[in-house]
Amino acid sequence: MAAGERTLILAEGFSADTHYGKTMHGVLRYRRADVVAILDSARTGESEAGVPIVADVDTALAYDPRVALVGVATQGGRFPPAWRDLLRRCIERGLSIENGLHEMLADDPELRPLADDAGVELRDLRRPPPGLDCATGANLDVDARIVLTVGSDCAIGKMTVSLELDRAARERGIASVFVPTGQTGIAIAGWGIAVDAVVSDFLSGAAEQLVVEGRRRGGELLLVEGQGSLIHPAYSGVTLGLYHGSVPHVLVLCHRAGATEIEGSPGHPIPSLRELVRLHERMALPRRPARVAGIAVNTAGLDEQGAAEAVAAAAEDAGLPACDPVRDGADALLDAVLDASA
Amino acid sequence: MAAGERTLILAEGFSADTHYGKTMHGVLRYRRADVVAILDSARTGESEAGVPIVADVDTALAYDPRVALVGVATQGGRFPPAWRDLLRRCIERGLSIENGLHEMLADDPELRPLADDAGVELRDLRRPPPGLDCATGANLDVDARIVLTVGSDCAIGKMTVSLELDRAARERGIASVFVPTGQTGIAIAGWGIAVDAVVSDFLSGAAEQLVVEGRRRGGELLLVEGQGSLIHPAYSGVTLGLYHGSVPHVLVLCHRAGATEIEGSPGHPIPSLRELVRLHERMALPRRPARVAGIAVNTAGLDEQGAAEAVAAAAEDAGLPACDPVRDGADALLDAVLDASA
Repeated sequence: MAAGERTLILAEGFSADTHYGKTMHGVLRYRRADVVAILDSARTGESEAGVPIVADVDTALAYDPRVALVGVATQGGRFPPAWRDLLRRCIERGLSIENGLHEMLADDPELRPLADDAGVELRDLRRPPPGLDCATGANLDVDARIVLTVGSDCAIGKMTVSLELDRAARERGIASVFVPTGQTGIAIAGWGIAVDAVVSDFLSGAAEQLVVEGRRRGGELLLVEGQGSLIHPAYSGVTLGLYHGSVPHVLVLCHRAGATEIEGSPGHPIPSLRELVRLHERMALPRRPARVAGIAVNTAGLDEQGAAEAVAAAAEDAGLPACDPVRDGADALLDAVLDASA
Repeated sequence: MAAGERTLILAEGFSADTHYGKTMHGVLRYRRADVVAILDSARTGESEAGVPIVADVDTALAYDPRVALVGVATQGGRFPPAWRDLLRRCIERGLSIENGLHEMLADDPELRPLADDAGVELRDLRRPPPGLDCATGANLDVDARIVLTVGSDCAIGKMTVSLELDRAARERGIASVFVPTGQTGIAIAGWGIAVDAVVSDFLSGAAEQLVVEGRRRGGELLLVEGQGSLIHPAYSGVTLGLYHGSVPHVLVLCHRAGATEIEGSPGHPIPSLRELVRLHERMALPRRPARVAGIAVNTAGLDEQGAAEAVAAAAEDAGLPACDPVRDGADALLDAVLDASA
């Protein structure tokens, strides 16, 4: 999303889902001012974060959108067949599409000519930049403090924690830059590489490019958006490639209060936070040791007392500072990060 | 390489290099009977494993090759510019090309029409199969004992160790299948997926498909070719994705005798074997614990006494059985693998 671009979020069937609708929820949190409507026929007439929810593209046109953002993230990143009608209609009505799924719309033999005829853009946020290669070691020369969010699972708020830390740091006058590594972060920040969409061999090279670029943009503190989890049966490779390629000095471990098992992977337990801290520190490259500075606890859905108890339990378990940066603000966690990188 | 297909290995400038020439050396070791000549103008008139080395494509034609195999693996997997002339000449002379680099020859706007005119094939070994997705959990249902080679670095013989274990197992009448995960293994075995060339998000799914396919091919013991290293600054993501996606019961840790640093990455130390064993066992998914059964020591270049000392030192360091399966045969290591998976 370009700055100020009037945006319709397409979230058909998923606007109430914080897991599969995480792109929508992230954009609503950090680019709210540019969102004019949300499309989800199951919730017509409702609203989300004050944004009206509409039934179809024609109704949405009353809000004068210029771009339709695909607001859902499906497992595997492909389009459910029913979505193609929706995309076609958007294009016919003159909307550009911004898409973060693995399926590349600009290569689509049906949608590409439609978009050309309509004079609209098909922007694939996950398309890797050309010329990627393996990491060269230039990451170790980046003159900035690098902070990576890691987690006990996917889709538990690593991007949000990085964005909240970045905001808190900038409010203190620190030259901080958020480094986007996934489609939602890219939609929000307007740059970045979706590391899960690059050829595996170039994962570390993509991560390296991102921290080099973050420094070039003036970052003295780089808040790198984490991906996946070292203990996730499907996504751990992306996590480790990003970890080693972004060469963080400091990690922030994110955890959803009460989670004991990887979501969607029954029988895959989440170990204790203390064990996760050790595992992550141990997996650092010897050339760039990393410390976990603190725990970011996602307490969404808990009441005040429940949240306070969950944060206290996490701090106790990990033996580290803990907070929920969304509920409590990110200042305490930022202090821990700055202490650890001093 | 199809069975019995007369093969010219293209190794210009690299035929003496065991690192960048590892595809050539692997194919010479396991598909020697099908190799009729090697092209490397710097070593014209010499031979390698009894195969004549020739200066150019026209000279090679005397040996009646049907396919030219790209025998080098460059970092990043792209073609040095000088190679394009060589490929063009092969195509013009009626040879199909088998290529394991990241650059896809079948998509090349210059070589594709040339090959069509000449009626030859451009086979890209690293091209991912269509329709890959994330792992589904079907890997955990594979009714076979799964053995993965891991290592302290890249290009130290993980594929060779898997192939030697597979051969030793089949000699004992065990229904063993070698599971290829990289271009050289695919050239040798004629099937497989180069996991480093798949989109990162689908690493685990590709690894899952491979063990499912290994079982479908009758394997009760699956020897999965390892890739990279958990401690390699550029390739660790591929290693972990393959590890978690192939859900091994048993690991064999490969190490080059005397190596103390990652090759090509100065300042990146290799920890002790004991520490590497612990790290690898710790990184197993809790749902599928894995034990390191033994150490495969690459003693190439050492004399008999030096090799024996290196193997003894590795066994002592790791506290596990150790041998060099190329020098000593794989039986002792196979015993350790079978014990560990009993």
